[in-house]
Amino acid sequence: MTFPAFFNKGKKDTMQYKSNLLIAGLLILCVQGIAGERGALLSRTEARSLQSALSQYPLFTQSYDRAVRKIEQSIQSALEVPPPGEAGGYEHEKHKQNAREMQISGSLYLISGDERYARFVRDLLVRYAEMYPKLGKHPMSHDQAPGKLFHQMLNETVWLVNASLAYDCVFDYLKPSERNLIEQNLLMPMVTWFTKDQAKEMNRIHNHGTWTVAAVGITGYVLNNKDLVEQALYGTQKNGAGGFIKQLDLLFSPDGYYMEGPYYVRYAIQPFFLFAEVIERYEPERKIFAYREGILKKAYYAMLMTTFPNGVFPPINDASRTMNITDDGVMLATDIAYTRCGADRRLLQIARQQEAVALTLAGLTVAGDLTSLTKADDLDWGSVEFTDGANGQQGGLGILRVGQGADQTMLLMKYGVHGEGHGHFDKLHFVFYDQRHEVIPDYGFARWINIEPKFGGRYLPENKSYAMQTIAHNTVAVDQQCQNGGNRQQADKMSGQRHFFDATNSQVQVMSARADDYFPGVKMQRTMFLVRNSPLEFPVVLDLFRLVSPSEHVYDYPLHFRGQLINTNVTYDAQQQSMTTMGESAGYQHLWKQAVGQTDASPLVTWLDGNRYYSLLLSEKPGTEVFWGLSGANDPHFNLNVEPFVMCRQKGRDHLFAAVIEPHGYFNEAREVSRQARGIFQQVRVIGHDEIGSVVEYFGQNGLKWRLMVNNGPADREPKLHTVTFSGKQYSWKGNYQLDFNAD
Amino acid sequence: MTFPAFFNKGKKDTMQYKSNLLIAGLLILCVQGIAGERGALLSRTEARSLQSALSQYPLFTQSYDRAVRKIEQSIQSALEVPPPGEAGGYEHEKHKQNAREMQISGSLYLISGDERYARFVRDLLVRYAEMYPKLGKHPMSHDQAPGKLFHQMLNETVWLVNASLAYDCVFDYLKPSERNLIEQNLLMPMVTWFTKDQAKEMNRIHNHGTWTVAAVGITGYVLNNKDLVEQALYGTQKNGAGGFIKQLDLLFSPDGYYMEGPYYVRYAIQPFFLFAEVIERYEPERKIFAYREGILKKAYYAMLMTTFPNGVFPPINDASRTMNITDDGVMLATDIAYTRCGADRRLLQIARQQEAVALTLAGLTVAGDLTSLTKADDLDWGSVEFTDGANGQQGGLGILRVGQGADQTMLLMKYGVHGEGHGHFDKLHFVFYDQRHEVIPDYGFARWINIEPKFGGRYLPENKSYAMQTIAHNTVAVDQQCQNGGNRQQADKMSGQRHFFDATNSQVQVMSARADDYFPGVKMQRTMFLVRNSPLEFPVVLDLFRLVSPSEHVYDYPLHFRGQLINTNVTYDAQQQSMTTMGESAGYQHLWKQAVGQTDASPLVTWLDGNRYYSLLLSEKPGTEVFWGLSGANDPHFNLNVEPFVMCRQKGRDHLFAAVIEPHGYFNEAREVSRQARGIFQQVRVIGHDEIGSVVEYFGQNGLKWRLMVNNGPADREPKLHTVTFSGKQYSWKGNYQLDFNAD
Repeated sequence: MTFPAFFNKGKKDTMQYKSNLLIAGLLILCVQGIAGERGALLSRTEARSLQSALSQYPLFTQSYDRAVRKIEQSIQSALEVPPPGEAGGYEHEKHKQNAREMQISGSLYLISGDERYARFVRDLLVRYAEMYPKLGKHPMSHDQAPGKLFHQMLNETVWLVNASLAYDCVFDYLKPSERNLIEQNLLMPMVTWFTKDQAKEMNRIHNHGTWTVAAVGITGYVLNNKDLVEQALYGTQKNGAGGFIKQLDLLFSPDGYYMEGPYYVRYAIQPFFLFAEVIERYEPERKIFAYREGILKKAYYAMLMTTFPNGVFPPINDASRTMNITDDGVMLATDIAYTRCGADRRLLQIARQQEAVALTLAGLTVAGDLTSLTKADDLDWGSVEFTDGANGQQGGLGILRVGQGADQTMLLMKYGVHGEGHGHFDKLHFVFYDQRHEVIPDYGFARWINIEPKFGGRYLPENKSYAMQTIAHNTVAVDQQCQNGGNRQQADKMSGQRHFFDATNSQVQVMSARADDYFPGVKMQRTMFLVRNSPLEFPVVLDLFRLVSPSEHVYDYPLHFRGQLINTNVTYDAQQQSMTTMGESAGYQHLWKQAVGQTDASPLVTWLDGNRYYSLLLSEKPGTEVFWGLSGANDPHFNLNVEPFVMCRQKGRDHLFAAVIEPHGYFNEAREVSRQARGIFQQVRVIGHDEIGSVVEYFGQNGLKWRLMVNNGPADREPKLHTVTFSGKQYSWKGNYQLDFNAD
Repeated sequence: MTFPAFFNKGKKDTMQYKSNLLIAGLLILCVQGIAGERGALLSRTEARSLQSALSQYPLFTQSYDRAVRKIEQSIQSALEVPPPGEAGGYEHEKHKQNAREMQISGSLYLISGDERYARFVRDLLVRYAEMYPKLGKHPMSHDQAPGKLFHQMLNETVWLVNASLAYDCVFDYLKPSERNLIEQNLLMPMVTWFTKDQAKEMNRIHNHGTWTVAAVGITGYVLNNKDLVEQALYGTQKNGAGGFIKQLDLLFSPDGYYMEGPYYVRYAIQPFFLFAEVIERYEPERKIFAYREGILKKAYYAMLMTTFPNGVFPPINDASRTMNITDDGVMLATDIAYTRCGADRRLLQIARQQEAVALTLAGLTVAGDLTSLTKADDLDWGSVEFTDGANGQQGGLGILRVGQGADQTMLLMKYGVHGEGHGHFDKLHFVFYDQRHEVIPDYGFARWINIEPKFGGRYLPENKSYAMQTIAHNTVAVDQQCQNGGNRQQADKMSGQRHFFDATNSQVQVMSARADDYFPGVKMQRTMFLVRNSPLEFPVVLDLFRLVSPSEHVYDYPLHFRGQLINTNVTYDAQQQSMTTMGESAGYQHLWKQAVGQTDASPLVTWLDGNRYYSLLLSEKPGTEVFWGLSGANDPHFNLNVEPFVMCRQKGRDHLFAAVIEPHGYFNEAREVSRQARGIFQQVRVIGHDEIGSVVEYFGQNGLKWRLMVNNGPADREPKLHTVTFSGKQYSWKGNYQLDFNAD
């Protein structure tokens, strides 16, 4: 069905709109008298429609009521516009809160017609307009482009997005003198700070840049200032070297994967979608949602498809471990994506998890269609690979999924670009998710975000010295060094490379990638399988990490985990009375060395996490060293999380770490039940590996014997025959891999 | 309303029964033809009533269906009666499972009349009867009385309780030859093992003894063997020196508090209530539920009233941290208590949390009455003090509660008896519960229960060397030693002493207790307040820990906590490259020393736990040392949990540690929100303390000044005037304490 959509400035257009019929009557109601109406996100006509539908759709009603409660509370308190303060401090938070509440209050004014909401916005804007011209550059910026109201300009651009939208809502309510004051003393000076004083930041191809261009662009539309819109779209020079369009070109891979990673796209998606929506409403002829083959839609979906089954974003690069899809920006983007990019019912499931919609026509549409979702469908994004880099040629990110709903098991491997300033030196790093949490986790950032006594809530020194370092991740560190020597400029020039990805067989899914010369002279290939097969109760991970070098190196294979060590077959010495660090630098200085052992057999380490046991079993090789450790050394300010890890060390030129990670059994302390605290796998043997292929055999209880053969050469597009000979025995297979569950 | 109750052997009696009318019709249905019927827990007549009510009450239906699913699954598998095995191993668990399932299957047989359930019981009992005579003493017992089927007799007594009840259910189904085989080869030999070979264990006044007498007594009733019943009730000599009655006399305080603590009463309550119920059904004239002024009812309520608001039992003494009221034994006891000790609607709320009822008439009654609970009432046990010791003169346990429902704040202090073999050396120890978990926790036991690779799931060496030690708790350790030198025999001879307890003022609740000579020559008094007062957002703890000695000592005031250190005002040196232990013995050897500092001011330590900040602020005194540490040193087998703690050290003869523990603010990482990461209290000053009283002043933001005066002499029964003079200034108050929120 096709409905007219609503645009300002008398422009009309149509858009494809496959929405639920529930909303149809409402939309038809709205098609009257919108010519010339103001409304960056919400016009008066639309607002009237929302008002008449207020009690119709539970999620919209809840969202509206929540907004009313919030603003009523603030209206009843005295307005506070304090001087600028320190990061994370009271004043800082107050300014953020004021901006958010102005935006909400503006919407409430349009929807309810209650002038108290408009007055609240006006009073705040006037107070800010009185203060802003007196402010200079904020004195407390650290390494960041400074704002005036905030220590970093980023906060100020977010502030302006909200303030401009709020101003747009109450424009009709204001006296000309008030408009003049607000525009001349507040909005324009702030825009000028961004476009002139901090032009470099504005032109940056980075999430900060996106907030900046959104702030400038939205303000431009609201103030009917075409020059600002042009600068926002094409950079301060209006030549396309910077600006929104360039960001759409460069920040996403052709698949929509965002170079900084999921945590940052969650933050960037808000200005991307808000600004795009405003552009679409003012100038639909720009067809912004169609730009670069619908890159905005792809970006939105790529963001969702990286999430863990519980809706949390994988904490790749500098990221918190808990950020999830209920974030306001994701909620706004969901409503816009649903109405602009196709009414995908999966997005309704997302909205249901978000438990909120925007106070816009898009939000109402989602809330309305949501009422037709009758059962708790399990959302399954399936296994997926994303390319990385603007050209899609700079490696990627692989995700394998097994199972249903929140109990899905997920394996993620990272082999794309570095991701600039927030990037971690962790190529071929993986994360394993099971039992509704990260079982083999990413550390995320070393930052206690917004906690003022913790360095103002900013990134901590340990973010660079530990969280970014290779050894803080689940990927091999060579010679106790960090990839690219921890040098970001160098890392930004490189990327991992895709090898093959095959999720067509739901019993055996695989992803394989390479990263060469991240340690000079060392070529690395990691091939990870997620395998379901009886008698295994849960999916197991088979990991082949191959290192090749003409010279001798020390290879450290680390796993970070949670929970309690239960068992090992390795004889070790524990540091009992005193404990030293694992090393001096490259993150090793932050790891306490609890114990070291050595074995010629397949090292086995079993731990307990939640209600399940996990065993790491590594390929046997004489003299394998095994280390147990704990993060938190050289951490005089208690900035780090204290978490266990285990590491296997090998020396040599070419080496293949072949590991099984097996979840098994059940433990319930409250019920005092434990079963199968020991895993099924008992031995992993590397038969051989060369430039053609790797052959590995796995042995376990009751005669279990698996054989895995993997193609180490260029990936097969069409399955070819591969043959290797190790110790006089010939092994052949067709295609990129073969896994025999009943090997001879 | 009064209904006839159902008893076996043709005996009838009445009992007071204030139940919901819903069940009334059913009960009347049952009053026919029960004379001479067998039925230790469930008669055929009762079973018919249950069958006819199967679909009437959801909780009963669910419980029945769950039982059917479980047994159907087992019936479809091959029966397994393996030889005896090791603790926590497969065979061990299989025997436990078989016994549980026999008991359930027996009930299902009576209720459904389906002979497959009886056959399942018969086949298992016969298999055990064939094996048992061939077994000798189990070879793998450690320190414990051995069984034959299990390494410890405890498991065997639990097994027999279930087996005898199952036998009772299927008695009519069995051929005389089968009865003879089972009785002569299995039940009687097992009983003989308990009553003759292990008579000492049977006569023990201890939870193991309770299981033993229940097993012997229930078997006695089922086999109509009066001698066994007499032995069960009065000990193997039938002279009252041992047995059930003596246990009722000695294991509970007059208030019903169980000397071993909540975790153990949860385990003991099952045999106590099962055996009492069987006694009541066979010989109501013993009036067992009325014995010792209804000690069974008191025991049941005391058990519930110690639980945290989330239904978890405080892990006092050797205990897991997660055991909760959904335990099967608590569920059984709840149904019996509801029908035998008064139909208290609060127990229906407990049943609702348990999500299960017993497959008995009692279970049906609870499920029926539960249907009348219409709203999610918050269960609030309120603040309560229990006396300890059989005579109620050996100290006690105090619990202060504030707030509603699961969000209640709870403060618990322990000042009773040692509690025999499972007792911890932790007099005047406290636990603080907030935000639905232990914020200042008890470590519980050092044991990975039932995890076979962890020492067979048994108590670990670190249980004695760490978990039992004073420093593992939140109470002062003197001269880096353990209370009573860690000697249990000595500790069992002593107890804490109640001082005063006053929860009448919901804004200021207090408990005070003493423990003298737990460290030779040192007298200790701890007075703990839970205080609500603006501008504090949450209840705060005021803690006065007073130590008096004629000689010089080192006093260590420790707090164990969870989460992340955020802030301190103490200048300290951190052990960055290497870390040593806090000491050599008494548990200190298991604590890594992360940092040490010194201050003359009030030491402040703030940490983050969940969504809230917590600050410890201690009284100022020149040269206070502050230590930060982590459990897990000298732990070569990774048996301990790694958890942070902080400790303040003072040297002297008499010292008063006056502390505030202040919860404050809010943190939500996913939402990136933090507020009030700093607390309101800033300084604590001890004005003075002597044998009459203590005077402490508290200072905080915005001119906050509190003064607290506490009676250190004998507790006032009627408020008396107390006067002290410190530094020439006189302080007076009436009663046990006075807290002024606006001190001059």
